Amino acid sequence: MNPIIDLVADLGEGFGAYTIGDDSELLEIVSSANIACGFHAGDPDIMAATVAECVRRGVGIGAHPSFPDLRGFGRRDMGLSASEVQNDVLYQMGALNGFAAFHGTKVTHLAPHGRLGNLVAVRADYAKAVAQAAARVDKELIVVAQDGELATAAREAGLDVAIVGIVDRAYQEDGTLVPRSQPGAVLHDPAEIVDRALRMVVDGKIRCATGVDMDIDVDTVLLHGDNPGAVELARRIRTELISAGVSIAPLAEVMDAKRKAA
Amino acid sequence: MNPIIDLVADLGEGFGAYTIGDDSELLEIVSSANIACGFHAGDPDIMAATVAECVRRGVGIGAHPSFPDLRGFGRRDMGLSASEVQNDVLYQMGALNGFAAFHGTKVTHLAPHGRLGNLVAVRADYAKAVAQAAARVDKELIVVAQDGELATAAREAGLDVAIVGIVDRAYQEDGTLVPRSQPGAVLHDPAEIVDRALRMVVDGKIRCATGVDMDIDVDTVLLHGDNPGAVELARRIRTELISAGVSIAPLAEVMDAKRKAA
Amino acid sequence: MNPIIDLVADLGEGFGAYTIGDDSELLEIVSSANIACGFHAGDPDIMAATVAECVRRGVGIGAHPSFPDLRGFGRRDMGLSASEVQNDVLYQMGALNGFAAFHGTKVTHLAPHGRLGNLVAVRADYAKAVAQAAARVDKELIVVAQDGELATAAREAGLDVAIVGIVDRAYQEDGTLVPRSQPGAVLHDPAEIVDRALRMVVDGKIRCATGVDMDIDVDTVLLHGDNPGAVELARRIRTELISAGVSIAPLAEVMDAKRKAA
Amino acid sequence: MNPIIDLVADLGEGFGAYTIGDDSELLEIVSSANIACGFHAGDPDIMAATVAECVRRGVGIGAHPSFPDLRGFGRRDMGLSASEVQNDVLYQMGALNGFAAFHGTKVTHLAPHGRLGNLVAVRADYAKAVAQAAARVDKELIVVAQDGELATAAREAGLDVAIVGIVDRAYQEDGTLVPRSQPGAVLHDPAEIVDRALRMVVDGKIRCATGVDMDIDVDTVLLHGDNPGAVELARRIRTELISAGVSIAPLAEVMDAKRKAA
Repeated sequence: MNPIIDLVADLGEGFGAYTIGDDSELLEIVSSANIACGFHAGDPDIMAATVAECVRRGVGIGAHPSFPDLRGFGRRDMGLSASEVQNDVLYQMGALNGFAAFHGTKVTHLAPHGRLGNLVAVRADYAKAVAQAAARVDKELIVVAQDGELATAAREAGLDVAIVGIVDRAYQEDGTLVPRSQPGAVLHDPAEIVDRALRMVVDGKIRCATGVDMDIDVDTVLLHGDNPGAVELARRIRTELISAGVSIAPLAEVMDAKRKAA
Repeated sequence: MNPIIDLVADLGEGFGAYTIGDDSELLEIVSSANIACGFHAGDPDIMAATVAECVRRGVGIGAHPSFPDLRGFGRRDMGLSASEVQNDVLYQMGALNGFAAFHGTKVTHLAPHGRLGNLVAVRADYAKAVAQAAARVDKELIVVAQDGELATAAREAGLDVAIVGIVDRAYQEDGTLVPRSQPGAVLHDPAEIVDRALRMVVDGKIRCATGVDMDIDVDTVLLHGDNPGAVELARRIRTELISAGVSIAPLAEVMDAKRKAA
Repeated sequence: MNPIIDLVADLGEGFGAYTIGDDSELLEIVSSANIACGFHAGDPDIMAATVAECVRRGVGIGAHPSFPDLRGFGRRDMGLSASEVQNDVLYQMGALNGFAAFHGTKVTHLAPHGRLGNLVAVRADYAKAVAQAAARVDKELIVVAQDGELATAAREAGLDVAIVGIVDRAYQEDGTLVPRSQPGAVLHDPAEIVDRALRMVVDGKIRCATGVDMDIDVDTVLLHGDNPGAVELARRIRTELISAGVSIAPLAEVMDAKRKAA
Repeated sequence: MNPIIDLVADLGEGFGAYTIGDDSELLEIVSSANIACGFHAGDPDIMAATVAECVRRGVGIGAHPSFPDLRGFGRRDMGLSASEVQNDVLYQMGALNGFAAFHGTKVTHLAPHGRLGNLVAVRADYAKAVAQAAARVDKELIVVAQDGELATAAREAGLDVAIVGIVDRAYQEDGTLVPRSQPGAVLHDPAEIVDRALRMVVDGKIRCATGVDMDIDVDTVLLHGDNPGAVELARRIRTELISAGVSIAPLAEVMDAKRKAA
């Protein structure tokens, strides 16, 4: 079987007159979108426009819920209880689904943003709260995560989990990322990043920070678009993956194809 | 056929540590709830708790979307375009539906709040925007309105419209309310209000401010709970309706029963 | 010298259509007010009305800044840096001072609210940030605190510190409060609370939870008004203090009188 | 006397992770800043940083208050009463003044933003509310306006009014701007805009849209920085004014110099 992969990026992260990232460029590159739901970024008008564009282009729609922290862009721990986290996620997923329903479609995946995304990987109470929210709302929702508490809780709740590959971050041998506070945590060389994307997707391998090669099975690759170089790099990763015979498809199709192949 | 009617009230209108109205009392009286969706009142925790209580008691769940105006409790015209109104309504309906979906149910009706509610009755662009939002999201959604632009637009969009009776307000002969700015617009005598509720529901009649009796066919009666007297009055209306042989049922059942009887 | 004391309460804690506490009752009892500044409660209209009433009655105006947490009423740790805390406090103190300046007066004291108030007592970085903000804005500002990091930092910054007595909470022998999580932390018997107020103000003594009497020198006593019983108790404390020969005066006068007596 | 003029731009219009305009470039060009106060843009951290930079560079600090409309960037009429407008302006001026006071200085001028700025020019109730707010807070505050209701109300309140010249907009013969909805309302040719700035400042003349030359006496010229071309143009206007013998100085100095010369 030829490898098949989803390419995903965070989209709709403006607010009112503000913009972050070049969504129109990214929408030509990705097959799925993590769409901000109004808590760290995004407002109803931006969500409506982003969902409409995804529908028009066949890009998969994913909820990108956050802590309620517009000023901090969702990067701060707001000291919420697991129950508050669950309610905030239900609210945001639901809101996004309103725009999807308007177009006769629905939210396909869930990928928590920022600090919430970090914390669901390590806090079992948050992970379970989010997984339960997703599972009770829609059994077909795909949870996007790295290995960690959220992936575990989602599988226990009967949900499909898509493993996301982070091509510009160094990995540790246990499959987690080298923390940003450590030197070498973030990769900057475009050629190296493209090479890692290819190895990750085509060969199922990643070279860890220790130099050891590790097996990895990713379903989606996270791309960035917050500066011109990032968009250019994202485009190059897409092109090189296609040249290598990889099919790019929305996450739901990737998961289906993998299920059939398994 | 015995008359059948829905009793509805605005619920979940607190925010954080703040409360307005006595929801636990009202939930014993009503058969449907207009639930605030976070824009004029309500936060995800309050919405979650309110929906859970409605599910537990079999009370119908309705979205009560508003202009984004927490400080003004949705009572101010925010100068929005019809497109912004549509997106705000999609967002709020969707968000509430997230909590309903968590309980395996869904939002049954839509009843715009405050100034938005006033404006959709007279602004055709707003009315159409809201009706389209509702119709595209769920063909089974019931739009709660008085006669006016929203009722018209909702019917044109193929939606069921439930006419709401306002028992403590004076009516004009065209079926609209006497504006609050005019003397006698709001009724205060409990006995008179109960009597109007009975005549409205049992006889299908309302005495207009001019003294003329007018035919009226209401599907739901709006009750209030923002002070102890209001809750007491609401309870009395319920009791007297039941004593008069009226069945109280959630809005969807009322509309079904009326359809079958027609 | 007869004892002199300030009575203070948290005021202006509504938001938009929401109210908490009975400000009009409390304004007849207190000599100073901790006024919410819009971050946990309070909006510009409420702040304007509250300041106007304080001016009319000769009640001292204090800033009651909070973490930016309307939904959590300022009770949650928002994970802010000390610099963010300083900027939030400058913003809120300044905003309140705008209303005071409108009446030709100024903010007299600063009393951090909720979780911020808890954290400045134990986090030296927050305490220093807040004390520096106060000292650079107005050398005459009085910082209201219990013994702790904020009191220390404020004195180091050259500011007057007013020690607040909490008459309905149990004290430990080091002068700090018994944590709310422990049994007996909050006192409920009105007679006991009135008695503690009298002993605290007239005798300069407080009976600790251990039964030991401790010296205490308070400049202001914090009263509550969030339920009818609380207002009644606050009124009784005021009456009994006056009967015992205590003068009630705004905080600035209390501090002046104590300075002269010293 | 050589002409003297203030150059002013809107600064600090980011929010959290969002930025609008290149403040660091503009701060090298202007002598005064209209600083966003958190209602349409700006948060306490951005306000703190912007004020600190203004102080460091000797740039005059002006309040740029807005309707409370982050999502609409202050461009929408929020349906506020004059009293609400006054309270919102007091809050925002006060908040900004907190940061100025931290640096031992104060807010020098007031220039309402966006739709509020439009409306105070034509609504006498809003104009009076804002002028009263300014006059009661600080008699030395300079109100920046075009001819209109705010200028009138500010003078009646005893305040200095600085007339702002808009060099990229067409003027009508009554001194007001050609509305944006009309063709030719906004000028785009850099050479023409520079020329208008020179004629306005050096000769006190402006060519109206009708072709007629009109006398104009401006105290400050508004520059923009929301795209690279705008910054370049702003720099060129500054350079050419200096070459023409014009002194650039903060608004307070300009008003002083004019008073002495008069």
